[in-house]
Amino acid sequence: MIVVMRPDATQAQVDHVTNLVREMGLKDHPIVGTDLTVVAVIGDERKVDGDVLERAPGVNKVMRVLAPYKMAARTDHTETTRVTIGEGDGCVFGGTQVPVIAGPCSVEGEQEILAAAEAVKAAGAHALRGGAFKPRTNPYAFQGHGEDGLKMLAAARDATGLPIVTEVLTPSDVELVSKYADCLQIGTRNSQNFKLLEACGKQSKPVLMKRGMSMTLDEYLQAAEYILAAGNGNVILCERGIRTFEDHTRNTLSLSVVPELHERTHLPIVIDPSHGTGKAHLVPAMSKAAMACGCDGLAIEMHIDPEHALTDGAQSITPAVLSDLMEDLARVAVAVDRTCVPG
Amino acid sequence: MIVVMRPDATQAQVDHVTNLVREMGLKDHPIVGTDLTVVAVIGDERKVDGDVLERAPGVNKVMRVLAPYKMAARTDHTETTRVTIGEGDGCVFGGTQVPVIAGPCSVEGEQEILAAAEAVKAAGAHALRGGAFKPRTNPYAFQGHGEDGLKMLAAARDATGLPIVTEVLTPSDVELVSKYADCLQIGTRNSQNFKLLEACGKQSKPVLMKRGMSMTLDEYLQAAEYILAAGNGNVILCERGIRTFEDHTRNTLSLSVVPELHERTHLPIVIDPSHGTGKAHLVPAMSKAAMACGCDGLAIEMHIDPEHALTDGAQSITPAVLSDLMEDLARVAVAVDRTCVPG
Amino acid sequence: MIVVMRPDATQAQVDHVTNLVREMGLKDHPIVGTDLTVVAVIGDERKVDGDVLERAPGVNKVMRVLAPYKMAARTDHTETTRVTIGEGDGCVFGGTQVPVIAGPCSVEGEQEILAAAEAVKAAGAHALRGGAFKPRTNPYAFQGHGEDGLKMLAAARDATGLPIVTEVLTPSDVELVSKYADCLQIGTRNSQNFKLLEACGKQSKPVLMKRGMSMTLDEYLQAAEYILAAGNGNVILCERGIRTFEDHTRNTLSLSVVPELHERTHLPIVIDPSHGTGKAHLVPAMSKAAMACGCDGLAIEMHIDPEHALTDGAQSITPAVLSDLMEDLARVAVAVDRTCVPG
Amino acid sequence: MIVVMRPDATQAQVDHVTNLVREMGLKDHPIVGTDLTVVAVIGDERKVDGDVLERAPGVNKVMRVLAPYKMAARTDHTETTRVTIGEGDGCVFGGTQVPVIAGPCSVEGEQEILAAAEAVKAAGAHALRGGAFKPRTNPYAFQGHGEDGLKMLAAARDATGLPIVTEVLTPSDVELVSKYADCLQIGTRNSQNFKLLEACGKQSKPVLMKRGMSMTLDEYLQAAEYILAAGNGNVILCERGIRTFEDHTRNTLSLSVVPELHERTHLPIVIDPSHGTGKAHLVPAMSKAAMACGCDGLAIEMHIDPEHALTDGAQSITPAVLSDLMEDLARVAVAVDRTCVPG
Repeated sequence: MIVVMRPDATQAQVDHVTNLVREMGLKDHPIVGTDLTVVAVIGDERKVDGDVLERAPGVNKVMRVLAPYKMAARTDHTETTRVTIGEGDGCVFGGTQVPVIAGPCSVEGEQEILAAAEAVKAAGAHALRGGAFKPRTNPYAFQGHGEDGLKMLAAARDATGLPIVTEVLTPSDVELVSKYADCLQIGTRNSQNFKLLEACGKQSKPVLMKRGMSMTLDEYLQAAEYILAAGNGNVILCERGIRTFEDHTRNTLSLSVVPELHERTHLPIVIDPSHGTGKAHLVPAMSKAAMACGCDGLAIEMHIDPEHALTDGAQSITPAVLSDLMEDLARVAVAVDRTCVPG
Repeated sequence: MIVVMRPDATQAQVDHVTNLVREMGLKDHPIVGTDLTVVAVIGDERKVDGDVLERAPGVNKVMRVLAPYKMAARTDHTETTRVTIGEGDGCVFGGTQVPVIAGPCSVEGEQEILAAAEAVKAAGAHALRGGAFKPRTNPYAFQGHGEDGLKMLAAARDATGLPIVTEVLTPSDVELVSKYADCLQIGTRNSQNFKLLEACGKQSKPVLMKRGMSMTLDEYLQAAEYILAAGNGNVILCERGIRTFEDHTRNTLSLSVVPELHERTHLPIVIDPSHGTGKAHLVPAMSKAAMACGCDGLAIEMHIDPEHALTDGAQSITPAVLSDLMEDLARVAVAVDRTCVPG
Repeated sequence: MIVVMRPDATQAQVDHVTNLVREMGLKDHPIVGTDLTVVAVIGDERKVDGDVLERAPGVNKVMRVLAPYKMAARTDHTETTRVTIGEGDGCVFGGTQVPVIAGPCSVEGEQEILAAAEAVKAAGAHALRGGAFKPRTNPYAFQGHGEDGLKMLAAARDATGLPIVTEVLTPSDVELVSKYADCLQIGTRNSQNFKLLEACGKQSKPVLMKRGMSMTLDEYLQAAEYILAAGNGNVILCERGIRTFEDHTRNTLSLSVVPELHERTHLPIVIDPSHGTGKAHLVPAMSKAAMACGCDGLAIEMHIDPEHALTDGAQSITPAVLSDLMEDLARVAVAVDRTCVPG
Repeated sequence: MIVVMRPDATQAQVDHVTNLVREMGLKDHPIVGTDLTVVAVIGDERKVDGDVLERAPGVNKVMRVLAPYKMAARTDHTETTRVTIGEGDGCVFGGTQVPVIAGPCSVEGEQEILAAAEAVKAAGAHALRGGAFKPRTNPYAFQGHGEDGLKMLAAARDATGLPIVTEVLTPSDVELVSKYADCLQIGTRNSQNFKLLEACGKQSKPVLMKRGMSMTLDEYLQAAEYILAAGNGNVILCERGIRTFEDHTRNTLSLSVVPELHERTHLPIVIDPSHGTGKAHLVPAMSKAAMACGCDGLAIEMHIDPEHALTDGAQSITPAVLSDLMEDLARVAVAVDRTCVPG
């Protein structure tokens, strides 16, 4: 931590800061510059609320030096973690192979999810997604089939062999969802629902954890740390677009997080181009871009009849588009020394 | 809902859209313009996922016409709702009087919260805030005293007569928190935790509901609608700053929401200048600005010794600053035909 | 400047950084912490491109310590600069009195601008605004009357005694505009048109300089420094809203810049609630908020017949609304120890 | 244009709106819905300031239906425009081949730019970039060598055969710069400097026009329309990152604009991953992503000795990295049915 004093700070103000630093159990190291003094603070700044020094008289600003997360950091863990979804090794995130999770936004019915699973399988994708518990912005919108939806997903898995990824909304549902799902998904609106993060950390199924739509990477990795610190190391990160001023997409898909997260963390990173754009016609191009910049997986919304989807039809591609896309992704994967072959 | 066709859309594509509209149970009304055709859709667009029409061939975009919330709308409810916190009428939001909620970010101990409550009372503010359950970005940071903290708050209420406002983080804590608190607070990170919104809607204590840091007003009022629709009409809205590119504050305090929310909803609106700036030195000016543009209340972080606060010290003002601020607020209130006098 | 090394940086990498620092003519001061090493850099970091150190091997990040502007800083100039527009002292920005600039977006004709000037005068405002050269997003929209518009403005000044503020778009027009105007306005889209800033700095009329819609305060004050460094100290800052994700206004009016700019700079700060919201119905409330948080002036769009305005009618208030607003502003001004009385 | 009335609007208010519409020379078409009335407006809404209707009594909002640009639209111009830089056809944007523009941020000296040009050529890139006139946020920073810099660029072109791209800052320099350059660049800070756009439209050299850092695509294409409407059809669009809350990059590179611009406009689109991230280590991955999603060219900052660059060293890659990247780009290009071979 570096405390930058104001140019007009007095010695007494600098002394007051060094005293506060010592009270925190840290070491101070003041440096007198040509224009102003800074106080370098030595020790683990993560354990204290150092921002409080900002309000001490004569202080201009406080700058953090250390990454605020530990277990998620690549520092002591240089290999990318491999997270396997389901039994067997058909769907491993973090290796050379880049799996694709596909399926509808929500589980609409037994026949619908089965047909979707078969289309996902036929296209060559590796896992099935579908929501049984749906977080809806509008309280009057379809909220999902709950446990019945989980059972339908399980039946679709039995029929196709595809592992299933589905969202959990609240701590009290974690046990139920983890009974059926091969991977629990935490949505963007729950990205700082710390009680839910902890609950997912206390069970053993892998967790696909979406980035909050206005989260910095430091905040994102601290949220992942909640799951890791609770005991579950099988965390897959997922970028799904951020909120900006742009209006040609529903969200802005920030692909630079892929190479940057690979620098900062050992956790694999998946891209969701469906929520990341909100527009079906942009999904193929952005999927290929994600592959080219090094993502470890993709999560794509596909619906067997998007115009009649109950949710997210606008961003869902058809089985035919998915099928073509899987072929294109296989080609791009090879061009960047990865593979994307049927599971 | 208005479906805008592309300039090159065919008649068959327009017909396909009108068929989809009819399948939704709505009426279509196509209008042929000089450059393109639009299909006006008549009926309650809130019950359907109209965005799906965006992916029909020949469609350029879909524009919503109706507000997506009903119970929160001012339309059928022209008076501002008055929400009373605590017993008696010392602290009513939505009337001429503008109450101020003040207190520390977190309940740090029995003595600390009692001293804070006495300072709040002495300054002339109207309610006490303090967190017993703390949502923390960093998993290693202080997470609050839990039920013990609630008991300390209740003791401070008994000693001062100030009603208490405190945060609830997860549905399973709602019953516990509502046993002690006079008003439940839902934080910005839980603003779309729909299970928590519903749980707060099913109990009877008033709810102070913060806007999510990247929520539009339409999304915000839909979230409020979750509480209203669950049966609790005592909702107080609270703007606490949004996430933007600005770096001179922790958040950007968007005060224009005050007059705009007064247009759209009958719910009272409180401003939190502490989180809204993240800097103690900006709190007095922004509190006065909030009063001048018509807010129905203020929520201000005050700590008896901010430099030693466990949380949010950087944005907490001292009792002396609060005391001066209350005098200043009283003057501004009068200038805009409101009052802000001790409860 | 503080160079933060990576936790795994080698001594050779630290040495390489210190060598680069010395080549820049600065002094290095490495500090070995518990987790990593930082290199404090002593000397004037403003003269070098220190960011380049970010790409040296083993470096994590570079953090600036000094404000990047000098002449605009309050440090050596503790009094707020008073900038007078026009002859006499009826319109001084930076003192106790808070002047209001009002008028139409564009000068539409001789009669229109005269009528507007008279309405501005009658309402008790202090200066007349109106655009003769209009920057228009759409190339087919009305672009202003040019020099004829300037002459109409001058005639309105002669008739009412109100000083006039008008925009200049390009360096080659600066001489012409400064011949007629009492104050030159630089618009948000030209806030980093450095050639225009310099040209305005080389003439002597005061400059009202709008903040860019996505500028940080550091960038803004550096832009102001271009004018100051070119020789013109009469700079008035003007916040007109920033671009964010919000959709209930055209821009987000960030009022916290008022107290923060007062900390950082000696230049007076004016608020433009018309562009800052884009909605006429929000202008009165936001004007009062601006007054309450300490602005040194207001710039408000008023049109004698907004429904027929050629430009910006949606955000222009009527003469009657301005008249009421001036009375309200006078009351709020007194409540914060300022005045806002007719010039 | 669609005018949405408030649910409580009276018939007189609807009539007032239809009258205003007729005064604008447009046709009105009111539609009475179940909850409210909308007035569809038929005719060319681009010629009027329809937003003014927002302030008519009883109006809730106004929604535009038509794209605000014409010449830039793909509607009447379905083939992507091919823009050739320099003589011969070695560097054509908009075809199957995807050219790469590379070089330093600024022309630092005769030897430096020559060495850079040779490195660019050796790596297999297609054009040389370098700034002679530099827009600098800080007034005290290096501003470029001006005409001398242009001469150095021309000498580097003579030595290598590479066409040159360089920035122009102000209308009065357009003639000078176009005398030397093969392509004029308009920077992000000048993206709405309409006088400069017009001046570039009145000369015949191709224009590489960067998107403003907070511009929507509609605003961007209107700015391009200024150049097209002034007579110059050789416009290349260039995305260079937008301003958002993200802090791990200097800007957020929004790659979804590539497929979306291909839908909306016939102009070719180039990606600048250097400014788009501000970090050299992210440039290779983002270049490949840009290629994969269909860009028509790349603009990359390369410096022969980035640690000693006068400007933008943090985001400049070395010749060795460029050389490897060109090989990688060639592979990705093939995977998406494009080519990227030496010019």
